[in-house]
Amino acid sequence: MKGFFQLISADEFLGLFDGFAPLATEQILLNDCRARTLAVDVAAPEALPPFSRSTMDGFAVRARDTFGSSESEPALLTIAGEIAMGACGRDVVLQPGQTAAIWTGGELPGNSDAVVMVEFTNQPDARTVEVYRPVAPGENTIRAGEDFEADATVLRRGHRLRPQDIGVLAGLGITKVNVYKHPVVAIISTGDELVQPDQPLKPGKIRDINSSTLAALVEECGGVPVPLGIIGDNLESMAAACAMALDLPADIVLLSGGSSVGRRDFTLKVFEQLDQTEVLAHGVSIRPGKPTIFARRGNTALFGLPGHVGSAIVVFHLFVRPLLRRLAGAGNIMDLRRVQAITAQQIPSTIGREEYVRVALSNTDGSGPPKATPVYGKSGLLSPLVQADGLLVIDRDTEGLDTGETATVILFP
Amino acid sequence: MKGFFQLISADEFLGLFDGFAPLATEQILLNDCRARTLAVDVAAPEALPPFSRSTMDGFAVRARDTFGSSESEPALLTIAGEIAMGACGRDVVLQPGQTAAIWTGGELPGNSDAVVMVEFTNQPDARTVEVYRPVAPGENTIRAGEDFEADATVLRRGHRLRPQDIGVLAGLGITKVNVYKHPVVAIISTGDELVQPDQPLKPGKIRDINSSTLAALVEECGGVPVPLGIIGDNLESMAAACAMALDLPADIVLLSGGSSVGRRDFTLKVFEQLDQTEVLAHGVSIRPGKPTIFARRGNTALFGLPGHVGSAIVVFHLFVRPLLRRLAGAGNIMDLRRVQAITAQQIPSTIGREEYVRVALSNTDGSGPPKATPVYGKSGLLSPLVQADGLLVIDRDTEGLDTGETATVILFP
Repeated sequence: MKGFFQLISADEFLGLFDGFAPLATEQILLNDCRARTLAVDVAAPEALPPFSRSTMDGFAVRARDTFGSSESEPALLTIAGEIAMGACGRDVVLQPGQTAAIWTGGELPGNSDAVVMVEFTNQPDARTVEVYRPVAPGENTIRAGEDFEADATVLRRGHRLRPQDIGVLAGLGITKVNVYKHPVVAIISTGDELVQPDQPLKPGKIRDINSSTLAALVEECGGVPVPLGIIGDNLESMAAACAMALDLPADIVLLSGGSSVGRRDFTLKVFEQLDQTEVLAHGVSIRPGKPTIFARRGNTALFGLPGHVGSAIVVFHLFVRPLLRRLAGAGNIMDLRRVQAITAQQIPSTIGREEYVRVALSNTDGSGPPKATPVYGKSGLLSPLVQADGLLVIDRDTEGLDTGETATVILFP
Repeated sequence: MKGFFQLISADEFLGLFDGFAPLATEQILLNDCRARTLAVDVAAPEALPPFSRSTMDGFAVRARDTFGSSESEPALLTIAGEIAMGACGRDVVLQPGQTAAIWTGGELPGNSDAVVMVEFTNQPDARTVEVYRPVAPGENTIRAGEDFEADATVLRRGHRLRPQDIGVLAGLGITKVNVYKHPVVAIISTGDELVQPDQPLKPGKIRDINSSTLAALVEECGGVPVPLGIIGDNLESMAAACAMALDLPADIVLLSGGSSVGRRDFTLKVFEQLDQTEVLAHGVSIRPGKPTIFARRGNTALFGLPGHVGSAIVVFHLFVRPLLRRLAGAGNIMDLRRVQAITAQQIPSTIGREEYVRVALSNTDGSGPPKATPVYGKSGLLSPLVQADGLLVIDRDTEGLDTGETATVILFP
């Protein structure tokens, strides 16, 4: 059955990732955790806030002492003290008819349950406060644990840490965090016609574009790219490069080959000949990206990517990125933003395969749905890539879109 | 006039940034350029592709030799050679009636102007090819310079480099790039009640949340955060910390203070007392974020941010981030994605100020506009921040939104 594969759908391709497990975990400092993925559920080690606080500048009171007060009949309270910022508010305990000056964020004194804003008070003398409005119990305060009670779950395993999440962890005193390791991604460009970008061009040669592009894509979604350079179009060199990648060890190997039929067969043969390696897919019913090859060796994934960088980018976003995020422990592996856009012109398509059309978006200020204009160009051209903002999806049962139709666009990160 | 400021609008606040110049530039290696901003227009130093190429596996021909060919009357061509991948195609020159085997990406031989796909040919013997379909001049080829002619502008100053842009630069042999330097952002948290996140809590104290949050926000948008620690609530300490920040030298200083009125006045006084420093704004008609203070000293910006981290995050996204991007040379400083969403419930607002309501989004698969549900909570609470996906904008002339209305949401990065 070697070499015989049926085209599978994009969803079937994604289903192949179920067999891959997240990578090992490591404990790192909170301040290094941005964009890392939590490897454990995080519970609050202490209540937040740790004590009941005022949310206003004013006077802490027993709410009942203010009931019935008004402009014409203010409640008269005696000042029992002032709670300085950072001082222990509990050291002051209010007796009936007493109050204490307090600042935003200060700890409530004992027996107090509300704060009157300074705007609704008057101080006729140093010991007395007139209160012109009643406050309800709890008003202008946050009670201890109102944000998180001790032991409450704060964030779940699989959550990617954003700045605000890091702030919450800092607030709870959590300064070391268990996260998943960064996936290591080996990148191999194959082609007798390729030279390094910094080398002089000889006749018939072109510069290697895929290594730099794929490395930047990997880095952008939290992987560690390891470019292994340019490999000639022969089985021995390609097999040796794959072996080197597996020895790193890489978690994902990206082998981007030429787009000729013969070279695709090379990639397939190389994967088939590797020890303990199973080819899981050869061809996917999408355009571009159809000749993609996918294999696994234990928990390591090997991709044979199209040689055209434009196609390789599509396959990266659709498949490599989700697998990379799965290995990195993400709960949501399809993380590229998707928006609804309006087509600016007719977009033809072929029934039976999903099409991913590069589009430039206009009207992206949020005042209405963006307008999507296809950025066409022959498949080998790079200039359309520079103009595109994302990929418009045309599903396999659709024969193309008319002008003014609504469609989903996957936004480039 | 000290201390007397009128509230300005968000647009007026952004207008204050016009006076700030982008930072100095540096030349760095292409592979370190991801997410950096170009400091120069980039022109193609050579044509791309450098030679005319085939986009198919097949036979390079003089198109006219195939005119009139069909299944029943194929054109008969003589094989003059094969262009191996990476070989100099021009070394083979086609005479009338001749053809050469070629692979996808191969250089066209001399005198050829099109390629016949191998699927539409037959080889009755080693020297002869039958062609079953005519091809037009240019068909299945990319001509030299079709992507970029030599000297053509490829990317403009102010463009943020994405993976595909880095690929194009690699393809053109550009491996060193002039980009703007990373802005250095000093971060100062003030408050007698604050302790470092890793220190034990004493009564009345809370952990510093703002430093970690702001550092992660700065890093996320390409700045270099320099947290200077926690400063007590007194003019001397705050002034000394600002002086230290300016000596770094920082390009932006973020001083986040408590939210009490007295402390806000401290920040204003500190800025006013700094050498050669001009306070440009004290108060902006947005909610949250109203008490924001903004000053400049030469090309360095100083922000007095609200003490509540939720408010500080809003001010960061609305103002600090755009200024950071301006200093980093970005052409588009308002880079947070904005989408249209449908309100899931009524959202009250007050005429006369812009409101930024934290919302969680559902239905974000691109199949329709997302639904925005407000994540309410008292202003000092952190837990709503963890649940929010972005900020729903209610403009100053609107008295709130009904259920099912369309509104703009600024997405958290």
